[in-house]
Amino acid sequence: MIAFQPTSPLETVLSPPLRFADRTYRMVPSETRALFSMAAREDVVSLAGGMPSPEALPAEALRAVLQEVLATEGPSVLQYGSAQGDPVLREQICEVMAAEGVTASPDEVLVTVGSQQALDLVTRVFVNPGDSVVTEGPTYVTALSTFAAHQARIVEVAMDRDGVIPQALADTFALLAGEGRPAKFYYTVPTFQNPTGRVLGADRRKEVLDICRRAGVLVVEDNPYGLLHFGEQPHRALCADAPEGVVYLGSFSKTLAPGLRVGWVRAPRTVTGKLVLAAESAMLSASGLTQRAVSRFLSTTSWQGHLGVARSLYRDRRDAMLAELAATMPDGVSWTVPDGGFFVWLTLPGELDTRAMMARAIGGGVAYVPGTGFHTRGGERNLRLSYSYPSVSQVREGVRRLSDVIRAEAGDGAVRLREAVAR
Amino acid sequence: MIAFQPTSPLETVLSPPLRFADRTYRMVPSETRALFSMAAREDVVSLAGGMPSPEALPAEALRAVLQEVLATEGPSVLQYGSAQGDPVLREQICEVMAAEGVTASPDEVLVTVGSQQALDLVTRVFVNPGDSVVTEGPTYVTALSTFAAHQARIVEVAMDRDGVIPQALADTFALLAGEGRPAKFYYTVPTFQNPTGRVLGADRRKEVLDICRRAGVLVVEDNPYGLLHFGEQPHRALCADAPEGVVYLGSFSKTLAPGLRVGWVRAPRTVTGKLVLAAESAMLSASGLTQRAVSRFLSTTSWQGHLGVARSLYRDRRDAMLAELAATMPDGVSWTVPDGGFFVWLTLPGELDTRAMMARAIGGGVAYVPGTGFHTRGGERNLRLSYSYPSVSQVREGVRRLSDVIRAEAGDGAVRLREAVAR
Repeated sequence: MIAFQPTSPLETVLSPPLRFADRTYRMVPSETRALFSMAAREDVVSLAGGMPSPEALPAEALRAVLQEVLATEGPSVLQYGSAQGDPVLREQICEVMAAEGVTASPDEVLVTVGSQQALDLVTRVFVNPGDSVVTEGPTYVTALSTFAAHQARIVEVAMDRDGVIPQALADTFALLAGEGRPAKFYYTVPTFQNPTGRVLGADRRKEVLDICRRAGVLVVEDNPYGLLHFGEQPHRALCADAPEGVVYLGSFSKTLAPGLRVGWVRAPRTVTGKLVLAAESAMLSASGLTQRAVSRFLSTTSWQGHLGVARSLYRDRRDAMLAELAATMPDGVSWTVPDGGFFVWLTLPGELDTRAMMARAIGGGVAYVPGTGFHTRGGERNLRLSYSYPSVSQVREGVRRLSDVIRAEAGDGAVRLREAVAR
Repeated sequence: MIAFQPTSPLETVLSPPLRFADRTYRMVPSETRALFSMAAREDVVSLAGGMPSPEALPAEALRAVLQEVLATEGPSVLQYGSAQGDPVLREQICEVMAAEGVTASPDEVLVTVGSQQALDLVTRVFVNPGDSVVTEGPTYVTALSTFAAHQARIVEVAMDRDGVIPQALADTFALLAGEGRPAKFYYTVPTFQNPTGRVLGADRRKEVLDICRRAGVLVVEDNPYGLLHFGEQPHRALCADAPEGVVYLGSFSKTLAPGLRVGWVRAPRTVTGKLVLAAESAMLSASGLTQRAVSRFLSTTSWQGHLGVARSLYRDRRDAMLAELAATMPDGVSWTVPDGGFFVWLTLPGELDTRAMMARAIGGGVAYVPGTGFHTRGGERNLRLSYSYPSVSQVREGVRRLSDVIRAEAGDGAVRLREAVAR
């Protein structure tokens, strides 16, 4: 009778005690992701997930380029690749970043498994347990879980309609430095932020860079949505004006296809060198097949044409969501007006709790993400709506259902809502 | 003039001080990988890298399955996927593991970016800085860098021809427990080990499992080569006889294609749950496209037929290497006789240093990996040869060149070699 036989009644006794690392106890399932299963119900219009639209995924073009890649580069793309990533793709990534004013060289770029891995590697390379990381409040939900998994102390800075409030950022840096725990970096999504859809104003960009420079704090600029702008021109990346002070995270997940899992990080060379070593011990290298597929897509199809189609698709859905919000939401509910990206951020009157309301919303046939998912604390009055995945008619139907849920939640008519607003 | 302008002479002054995490200073370039650039020279026969043979990469079959996957599952495989991995692939992975006696359920399996990511996630979930990890000595080079990146204390246990020495393993566990720093886990490659090609004997497997059970130490079984056996039957996995005490790492990199970056980890459910959360914060999910490609390959082509072709290809190269070693190596040089996998491990007489010899070997037109790469210390007398990538004639030529280099290194004739052996 061998030890550990699954049939052994003593199995649990015989099992080794599981002594996890301290960080592992900080890893808890995200409330947000738990919701997605509920939101997947047939009768529910989901405005929760931030997935790109299926219509914006160039399946046919990718089928063609994968054909060519395997026919012409078969053995090499199926082999182990460079830990830093395909050299040709890294050159093309520099061209992509140039659209937002960034001047980068391929040796500053590391190709990653989506920008999520880039964020994880940056955190791994900079953060000791207990180190402070400063973020916008609210911010991207999985950034919070990545920082938590690395046992970072997360400090949120308030935003207004133009993005993070510069004085509040400066005060936070000063406070942390005063405590002898200066921020390791400032994590920001300055363009079409997740979850608010807000853009950091042009003047504020210079102000924020100057505050970070004076405080000696590195900026981690996460920019997955920048090229999905509804205005004529893309916004200038923070990295464009401070290459030595900014680590830039990019991704093809929103502009091409998440399933390829191709993102990148551009950093000052010293940092990139460490990130490459971290990537090597984390995965050896990213998939040569998907990297070459993206590279060939960029070189053989109309990237700009593809982006143009995606922009107008998302603009139409944004328009539908804003129109329906204006037409159906009760007084006292306010929302952001995104000029790109995937998200609208709602603020409800003070008495309502979007987490408590979620179950009733699902019952009412609509799903959203409660604001609490994007904060270390607070956010009960807020919720995130995404217009990227559902069709225009689904967007309209979902917003109508949500308006009904909020009205019902607020009780008889909008009376208490008006009171709440009056307060 | 904006801060950080790359043109600014003050740029370095204006750059934020880079305060890396403590672990980052443990991340150093691997001596082994540095060699690969040299080994890539046209006139050098490389017996260094452990890449699969190009002839064993089913480029055409993968082209076909990728076509089908994108034609029939286009939008879904290009979207975000489950953090745990494709459910169908996880079922097929359980069937693959069954060949080595493992009874696993899909909910115990996490699909990863190669088994390297599986090892990184397991280390992340279990190891605090300073925690002890026990390994075979020598062991897989990138496992050492992953453990180092997580600031683990690496403790090697000696091997003989039948694998790790059980008593030495038991003594090591006792020593660490006595120091109040019990091993977090025992990392082992029991079948066709990298770098030695050795197999842990059947009786020793039970002995090792029993030692680990009594010491309460979790086993991390890394098994990328198990299905590339030259004998009739595969070896029974450690995990087959101790599912609650063993975390099993698997990979399609050696049996299908590294460029797909599809591997997995099978662990007790409690551990798998933590690994899924770690994977989510590390990359959200692995590529749905490459996962579905592997899944469809397994379901629509002859996996066994493919493995059979790969086995005979590698067996022929192994035979060529062993024959040439026997025909050309001077007295005093000994080597392992692998019954599967990719590697042969050489031991030279005491006066030779394989690291010092490397430059002259490159000059002599052959590359190998010095033994020092596979140890935290020591290994100067050893070197690893791989027969997986070069052709049979290249293998023979490479070994002939290496024999000449060793003879020259040993000085005039085999005199000093014989002396060395006599000592």
